[in-house]
Amino acid sequence: MLVDGQPRRSLWPTAALDALQVIDQRQLPHRVSIERLDSVEAVVVAIRDMWVRGAPLIGATAAYGLALQARADAADAALQAAAQRLGAARPTAVNLAWALQRMLRRLLPLERGERAQAAWQEASAIADEDVATNLAIGGHGLALLTELASRRSGPVQVLTHCNAGWLATVDWGTALAPVYRAKAAGLDIHVWVDETRPRNQGASLTAWELGQQRVPHTLVADNAGGHLMQRGLVDVVIVGCDRVSASGDVCNKIGTYLKALAARDNGLPFYVAMPLSTLDLSLHDGLRQIPIEERSARELTHIRGLGRSGEWVEVQLAPDGCAAANPAFDVTPASLVSALITERGVVPARAEALRSLAKQGG
Amino acid sequence: MLVDGQPRRSLWPTAALDALQVIDQRQLPHRVSIERLDSVEAVVVAIRDMWVRGAPLIGATAAYGLALQARADAADAALQAAAQRLGAARPTAVNLAWALQRMLRRLLPLERGERAQAAWQEASAIADEDVATNLAIGGHGLALLTELASRRSGPVQVLTHCNAGWLATVDWGTALAPVYRAKAAGLDIHVWVDETRPRNQGASLTAWELGQQRVPHTLVADNAGGHLMQRGLVDVVIVGCDRVSASGDVCNKIGTYLKALAARDNGLPFYVAMPLSTLDLSLHDGLRQIPIEERSARELTHIRGLGRSGEWVEVQLAPDGCAAANPAFDVTPASLVSALITERGVVPARAEALRSLAKQGG
Repeated sequence: MLVDGQPRRSLWPTAALDALQVIDQRQLPHRVSIERLDSVEAVVVAIRDMWVRGAPLIGATAAYGLALQARADAADAALQAAAQRLGAARPTAVNLAWALQRMLRRLLPLERGERAQAAWQEASAIADEDVATNLAIGGHGLALLTELASRRSGPVQVLTHCNAGWLATVDWGTALAPVYRAKAAGLDIHVWVDETRPRNQGASLTAWELGQQRVPHTLVADNAGGHLMQRGLVDVVIVGCDRVSASGDVCNKIGTYLKALAARDNGLPFYVAMPLSTLDLSLHDGLRQIPIEERSARELTHIRGLGRSGEWVEVQLAPDGCAAANPAFDVTPASLVSALITERGVVPARAEALRSLAKQGG
Repeated sequence: MLVDGQPRRSLWPTAALDALQVIDQRQLPHRVSIERLDSVEAVVVAIRDMWVRGAPLIGATAAYGLALQARADAADAALQAAAQRLGAARPTAVNLAWALQRMLRRLLPLERGERAQAAWQEASAIADEDVATNLAIGGHGLALLTELASRRSGPVQVLTHCNAGWLATVDWGTALAPVYRAKAAGLDIHVWVDETRPRNQGASLTAWELGQQRVPHTLVADNAGGHLMQRGLVDVVIVGCDRVSASGDVCNKIGTYLKALAARDNGLPFYVAMPLSTLDLSLHDGLRQIPIEERSARELTHIRGLGRSGEWVEVQLAPDGCAAANPAFDVTPASLVSALITERGVVPARAEALRSLAKQGG
């Protein structure tokens, strides 16, 4: 999507295929800072410390991480150890494991000498497929938004939580792909952006990327969504996901569940944009089985922002020594999900539908 | 309650009765700063700019504001104009109007020469009654917590939103009065503190005052409450309120409604601590009739905290020029409220119960 009017992806390899380049998302919305990652360790740090984040982007980044390993040492043990380290960088999103397994399945049967080149190709394929997937999700979502638009005057009002935009993917985004396609199709649209505490991905990433594409949007506190729905100011909620169980339970950024409850209470559709790579058929009970990452208390007690002289400044919000708990995700039960928007169409969040979707092959 | 081990109220008149003193709550949790307010204008600023906040405290502060007016000029027109200005400082909490009307009812029938002294007495009575009310709310709430404690091992887990502690009142608080009485009674208790964006009253006030009273507590993002409930980590939600309609709809800090939805979805009791002064029998439909204060977008796009050198620093969170909406309150329908904890006992959030409660007289 556009950054200062120029098309960009959120990651791309160098021309020499000796490093991966990413936008350091910790610097947004105040700076567009491009970082070069030239080792598995650098990629682990970038994933773990959230220079890159978002389930699909984490998967693609980890795939390139394995390509860097294949370039340095393509032995089975080296590749497997690298996959282990990359896979442990973030525990919740399933795309990470999915991308690494796909890379190993492709590379391990090859001769060692062929692995480096194949690894770059496979990582690029994962990235390109992500873009195609998101475009398809955008198309199916656009149909839903067009239908909503036909039933009202004024803009279609979308509420989204966290960032499932192009920055969470290689391009286009998942939850925001329908919004970008709607904008391109000339649909009148407005997005309520949850700020998404504690890491403020809504305020710093979603608001930024919507602004860059000139999509009308308004930032709100996470607390405000229910009130907006009660007042008739929301037509539809669309969010992304980090892992979806076989039964359709949706693990996504902490606070998603509260918005799903409010959507149900106000009779509004609650859609989850889900690339099939985010489906984890090995899990049947999302609430009990999906591991929830617990992040640092400091994300709550302190916050970083732009100071008066244009530098990053961290300030303390809570009393000295205040204990804080910071679960990063929650699970929205399938019963609260109106439908999943996948690259193969809009499907109910039900075990049977998901099983048959997965069986269609890729 | 205790501040650095010493008992304090949140406001008190000077010995000479020529000014009101308040804790400037904008400086918490980093500084205990006591401000002297010696004119109606100063009181209006303190209420409007939230040096003091919380429905009961706003009422008591405004009452003292009228006492300052009575000291300067006790003519009918002067008192009425002052009441108008004070009443317009914040639009949502009904206690403000309630306290001002009570003051005028007491003062206007008196000779002008008697009004100043009567005004200080009446304001002090309002403050003292607030303390007694909150102690009574605490007693009734303690019975509920004791009952919950008898059914589980380990601490009773309370979740609260915003600050309805002693800082929101003259002393003891409303939602936190049961917690403080439980602590005094030796009950094992732990409080999950919603940070309460965008003004962070949970992180800066509730966490601070619980820490000062040595009540175990943990700060969480507003997004986390539903997840905590799903995991069985919450036994009861207790919040305060800014206005309650005749039908039992509860207007309280933005985000309260989302926690009420989550409590219902998880079969947990959702209690609202309500002094009778917060009941507005003139309103029948909370959702349609309670005016919701819209505050500055800057409360979302920027935030203040403690910098490294111990000074207050404001930083920018959102992109330049980002639009933001900031409704300060929402309305939780009566159907989601398990019960109201009032100074006269625990009553259902139902029109009949509230009418008969109000009829009992004061």
